[in-house]
This record gives sequence, structure tokens and C-alpha cells, in this order.
Amino acid sequence: MKINVVKSVLEASDTMARENRDRLDKAGVTAINIMSAPGSGKTTLLQKTIPVVMRSGRCAVLVGDLQTTRDAERMADLGAPVVQINTGRGCHLSPAEVARGIDYLDLSAIDFLFIENVGNMICPVAFDLGEHLRVVLLSVPEGEDKVAKYPTLFQSADAILLTKMDLAAALNYDVSCIRDDLSRINTRAPLMEVSAQAGTGFQEWLTWLAGQRRV
Amino acid sequence: MKINVVKSVLEASDTMARENRDRLDKAGVTAINIMSAPGSGKTTLLQKTIPVVMRSGRCAVLVGDLQTTRDAERMADLGAPVVQINTGRGCHLSPAEVARGIDYLDLSAIDFLFIENVGNMICPVAFDLGEHLRVVLLSVPEGEDKVAKYPTLFQSADAILLTKMDLAAALNYDVSCIRDDLSRINTRAPLMEVSAQAGTGFQEWLTWLAGQRRV
Repeated sequence: MKINVVKSVLEASDTMARENRDRLDKAGVTAINIMSAPGSGKTTLLQKTIPVVMRSGRCAVLVGDLQTTRDAERMADLGAPVVQINTGRGCHLSPAEVARGIDYLDLSAIDFLFIENVGNMICPVAFDLGEHLRVVLLSVPEGEDKVAKYPTLFQSADAILLTKMDLAAALNYDVSCIRDDLSRINTRAPLMEVSAQAGTGFQEWLTWLAGQRRV
Repeated sequence: MKINVVKSVLEASDTMARENRDRLDKAGVTAINIMSAPGSGKTTLLQKTIPVVMRSGRCAVLVGDLQTTRDAERMADLGAPVVQINTGRGCHLSPAEVARGIDYLDLSAIDFLFIENVGNMICPVAFDLGEHLRVVLLSVPEGEDKVAKYPTLFQSADAILLTKMDLAAALNYDVSCIRDDLSRINTRAPLMEVSAQAGTGFQEWLTWLAGQRRV
């Protein structure tokens, strides 16, 4: 008797993620899944990062949003191919969407693939997209309680950027709360304090990133 | 032949939401579902609102978070009953969770039930909790593109609060972008500009809120 098995959504998703990673590995691409709440500065980080990466290497971007191509437009003139994925009501990127996005790219021509996920601190965490690394952003105005309130997101991070540091003084922001909470759940990922407005802290990020490039 | 029907998750959810609304209606309670990204100021708004409401009436709070009781603790000393709902990995409050939360409250003793949803601009939108009104918060540091990028959230709002207005000047924030985008998708909901830091704009919100009270 033949037993038909309907795979769970997450199991099927993980299979697709592995296929994505295989494709990326064969092409020598390092894929980075960038996650945060809406408005934490994911696109701004990429606007700062892409021109520097392009000096010594090549990169491409997949960017997920429910609607609009605004993020892709913000990155369109930086010299790297950008694919906008509109998820409609989807609250996270899926590996199937990433696979379709990769179809638009010449993987042999890039070193880094940045995947800017949908702005959401919860749902994207559960979905492996086939990335090699996860970078999580948290912006100062979101408050000091977010590591404790969204531990699964921060646990899964390989690097964490605390953004909009220029607002820290005005908001009386205490970075030690973040460091304390991280010390309990993730001591592996570096915490880097940056400000796009002030132009500070990006060297540490760019150095970390350069260290993730494959030979 | 008997046909067994498994109701869709959303259909079962809507039935529970209607049951919640019936209970609230019978008790004369106005329930307000408060939604926003993480760190937009939902709890701060309630900290400002509860003491004023308590002068002329009575209220209670259900507050949803993945983890911790930090939000409930911030509101614990304001004189209103507060129930913390921990959703674990759940990315939105469900009507079943709200029903269990309501079980802890004496509905006959309150005029307003504030339901602070999980910080998320996407998933909570699809779930009716049994509320009468939806209030959406957007904070200035999240950027000017959020109405266009999350239209379903803003479409469903009965009132919208633009929070952290004290940061607008430093961030060169253009409120007219928000107003333009809203004019295309929701002309019904008032947009109220507030700042908890500066203590501005709350009178408009409190007046609007007072107008929603049942007799």
C-alpha cells in the first residue's frame, strides 16, 4: 500500500532553501539574509555597503516588500543588480521567492548576495532562505527592550547592527541593556553601533563583511 | 452521506472574534485593537492614556508579546487591570487568546478595553479580534514610506497616530508624504501627530477616544 505524504510547509520550505544554498555554493556566492523591524535601516545599510563592496568585488540584492518598488529604486543606481520581490500579504520572504529572484541573476558574476527580508521581527526567523549568514538590525528609537522581546530573531543572528546611533543621546538610550540581554542569548554575533546620519561605525561592519567573502 | 467540513483557520477565527464582540457589546465595552511595528510607542501611548481615561471612566488592557511581561509591568501601576498574553512564536494576537484574556476581566466594570497587539505591521491585520476600532501607530524614525509599503494596515485603521514627532526636525521628516499616501487609501481615519517626549498632540487623541465611548 502506497502512503502519500504531504510534506509540511516548513519541511518543503527547508528543501527549497537547501537547493538555493547549493546553487549559491557552486557559484561561490556568500548570501546574507538581512532582517529587522520596518524602518530600522536595512535599505540605508545596503546603500552604504554596495558602493564599497563594488570597489573590490561584485554583489547583487534581492529585496522583499509587501508592495511598491521603493527600496529597489533607492538601490537602482549603485551599480549592482537589484531584484524587487513583492510578497503581497506575505509577512516574510520564502525560499521559493528567493529561487525565482536568483533566476534573474548571473551568480557567476557576484561574490555577495544580499537578501533584504520583509520588515518583520517574527515571521522571517522561521524561514531558511538558503542564506549563509544572518544579519539583524535594531534601531535605537525602537527601544532597549527588543532583544528580550524577540529573542529568536537575535539568537539566529551572525552579526547585529545597532542603527541610528545619532539619536541615542536625545533618547537617553542605554546600549548596555542591549549588551546585557545579548550576553544571555547570543555571544557569538558581534554588535556594531552605526549611524548613517553621522556616518559612523560602518568600517567595523565593512571589515566584518569582507571577512565573510569566499576565496 | 455526511460531509465533514474542516473550517479554515480564518473562518474559525472570525467566529471567535464575533463571540468576543458579542460579550463586549453586552457589557457596553468599546474595544480598541492597537497595532504598529515594534517600538512605535504603543505601550507609551497607553501609559499616557490610561490615567486620563481613569479620571472619568474605567479601562483594562490586554497586551500581546512573544516573550516577557515588560509591557504589562510598564502599565501595572496605572490603576487599570492589565493582562499580558505571551504568544511564544505567534506573530499576532488571536481571538482565542483575547477570549482567554477577557476571562480575567470584569467587563461590567470597564468602558474601554485596549488590546495592544504584537509589534508587527503585517500579520495582525488579517485577524479580527472582536474589537470595535483599530488604531495604528507609525513612528517618525520608521521613515516616510510606510503607508505605501503597508497599505492593508493603514486601510484598516480608524485612527492613525504619528508618534515621536519630536524627532521630525532632526530627521528632516516630511509629514506630507504620509498625508499624500493616506489620501489615496484611507481618508476616514484622522491622522494625529504626537510626541510623548515633548508631551504634544495627546489632547486630540484623548478627545477622539472620548468620542468613542458608549453611553
